[in-house]
Amino acid sequence: MTETDRFLRACRREAVDVMPIWMMRQAGRYMPEYRALREKYTLLELCKTPELALKVTMQPLRLGVDAAILFADILLPLEPMGAPFEFAKGEGPVVHDPIRDRAGIERLRVIDPEDGLGYVLESIKLIRKELNGKVPLIGFAGAPFTLASYLIEGGKSAHFVKTKKLMYGEPEAWHLLMEKLAEVVRKYLRAQIVAGAQVVQLFDSWVGQLGPDDYQQYIFPHVSKILKDIETTGVPVIHFGTGTTTLLPLQKKAGGTVIGVDWRLPMDDARAMLGDDVALQGNLDPTILFAPVPVIEARAADILQRMRGVGYVFNLGHGILPETPVESVQRLVDFVHEFRHPG
Amino acid sequence: MTETDRFLRACRREAVDVMPIWMMRQAGRYMPEYRALREKYTLLELCKTPELALKVTMQPLRLGVDAAILFADILLPLEPMGAPFEFAKGEGPVVHDPIRDRAGIERLRVIDPEDGLGYVLESIKLIRKELNGKVPLIGFAGAPFTLASYLIEGGKSAHFVKTKKLMYGEPEAWHLLMEKLAEVVRKYLRAQIVAGAQVVQLFDSWVGQLGPDDYQQYIFPHVSKILKDIETTGVPVIHFGTGTTTLLPLQKKAGGTVIGVDWRLPMDDARAMLGDDVALQGNLDPTILFAPVPVIEARAADILQRMRGVGYVFNLGHGILPETPVESVQRLVDFVHEFRHPG
Repeated sequence: MTETDRFLRACRREAVDVMPIWMMRQAGRYMPEYRALREKYTLLELCKTPELALKVTMQPLRLGVDAAILFADILLPLEPMGAPFEFAKGEGPVVHDPIRDRAGIERLRVIDPEDGLGYVLESIKLIRKELNGKVPLIGFAGAPFTLASYLIEGGKSAHFVKTKKLMYGEPEAWHLLMEKLAEVVRKYLRAQIVAGAQVVQLFDSWVGQLGPDDYQQYIFPHVSKILKDIETTGVPVIHFGTGTTTLLPLQKKAGGTVIGVDWRLPMDDARAMLGDDVALQGNLDPTILFAPVPVIEARAADILQRMRGVGYVFNLGHGILPETPVESVQRLVDFVHEFRHPG
Repeated sequence: MTETDRFLRACRREAVDVMPIWMMRQAGRYMPEYRALREKYTLLELCKTPELALKVTMQPLRLGVDAAILFADILLPLEPMGAPFEFAKGEGPVVHDPIRDRAGIERLRVIDPEDGLGYVLESIKLIRKELNGKVPLIGFAGAPFTLASYLIEGGKSAHFVKTKKLMYGEPEAWHLLMEKLAEVVRKYLRAQIVAGAQVVQLFDSWVGQLGPDDYQQYIFPHVSKILKDIETTGVPVIHFGTGTTTLLPLQKKAGGTVIGVDWRLPMDDARAMLGDDVALQGNLDPTILFAPVPVIEARAADILQRMRGVGYVFNLGHGILPETPVESVQRLVDFVHEFRHPG
């Protein structure tokens, strides 16, 4: 078994030598070599320059993670769709002209990924070449609800008032927006796979703001359309969200080879809820990496003990945080690889 | 049955004529008369001047809600404990000197409520007198985790990194902090009851950031100590949080006559999870109040249909939002009162 196999095999619920681990935002501000690059380039410059995206994607591999994830941002498709944005210092993304009404939704372009996102596909090709089979490459996209929340709120949001106001108040306009976003995302993920992504993850990071009835009505048809199509490629798909305890059965139904679980639900409960016919990924609280090493090890061991058997990918429950000590990340990766189930 | 009975009877799982309704933050920025007062006084001035707190507390009663809730803020105890704060314009609370270490925790004073919070108790007496039995008065306090998060982060937080870093990394210091906060809160709620509060609510607004094992280890002993003591007074206690789907059984075990449920969990699922021996409160998504009236009515009807029978208090899943149309709030209150279960 090569290193490449471990992560892909876990996604497919096949036996593995040790548990695979990668981390969301594993290429990021917690790494000194990333911060050094960010002093010279903006986040968007790193995303839009394939040679730089390659460089950043490769940085965390020194930690021994079992997968590389394309360096990019879930918002990149918004710009060619007609909603440019920037990352304001300390404030996160700012969409210059947020969607206010149905007319704004109608103006959004359902782009082909080659038309405005070619640099992402170019990055994937470069990364695959550089990886040369060492570890698999994960591509990704934001899911329609999460993308819509940025488009409508104009940035991060605490209560998603404007998003939900449109969703509840103008369901036809909402579904038009979801359809457009879903179609862009579907084509974008397909193009990433054609370019060389060996696994793709759909980030529905904020969908946990909804209860299951809303998910069923406003989200499910669109996410399902994306995932059922991508599943036909044979490439494993990770379906990720946070705060999704009550949504997980519907998320599984919508699709995904692997379902992401955050830290609010113990992994054995997630397994009991979702059954054995799907792989799971998660669920270490990213803040655990700020704790002393014995605490990190105990928490990782606890998760691993709950996940005996096949079909599990070790990961955090959400992205790694900027101030995380890199030596703790290194220890976590090593610990997961060294772990053997007692008995 | 007087109006007073309806809310108290629902808390005690006794039969009611119609479902009682009140709303978290029902005295707040969505009301023009509240905004008019806030042009003249700061939030803290309103809290600290019993005549003004009385005035604000009474404002939403014109909507026909079945309970008044003391106008105050969960952070008020922090100031006499030795951690003064202010509400910065548009930024929420700012604790001037956040807790950094065990020494900071040791310096916190375990105050008696008369020692620095006398104005709250005075407000309660004034409000009870003014209410004159029309509707019951709810007192409240923040729960230890939620208060600790403001003390440690210095304000609102996205990831609670500093809070969890202390919790995971220095458990002894953490438990000392929790003990101090729990003792202040326990005495504060008891004093509110002596002053005239007929129901009290414990706001553990942010505890849904934790999974059940962390809740059990770091939170449960302290919340339980508060609630088990308050239960001996015979006054109903509402135990509230958000994002708590995986914590609800432990929260029920920790105590409370009524358990709060946010909008992520359908109320009938909450009832099935928690059993018939506890009252429930919630769970309309506060953003629903931004939807057209027929949507508000349909959502309210859906919740009411799921909650046939006794032991339910209609409420939002979290506080009412500042931009909420007041006429929609009025319609919701009327709709809940007019609702009759079919058949």
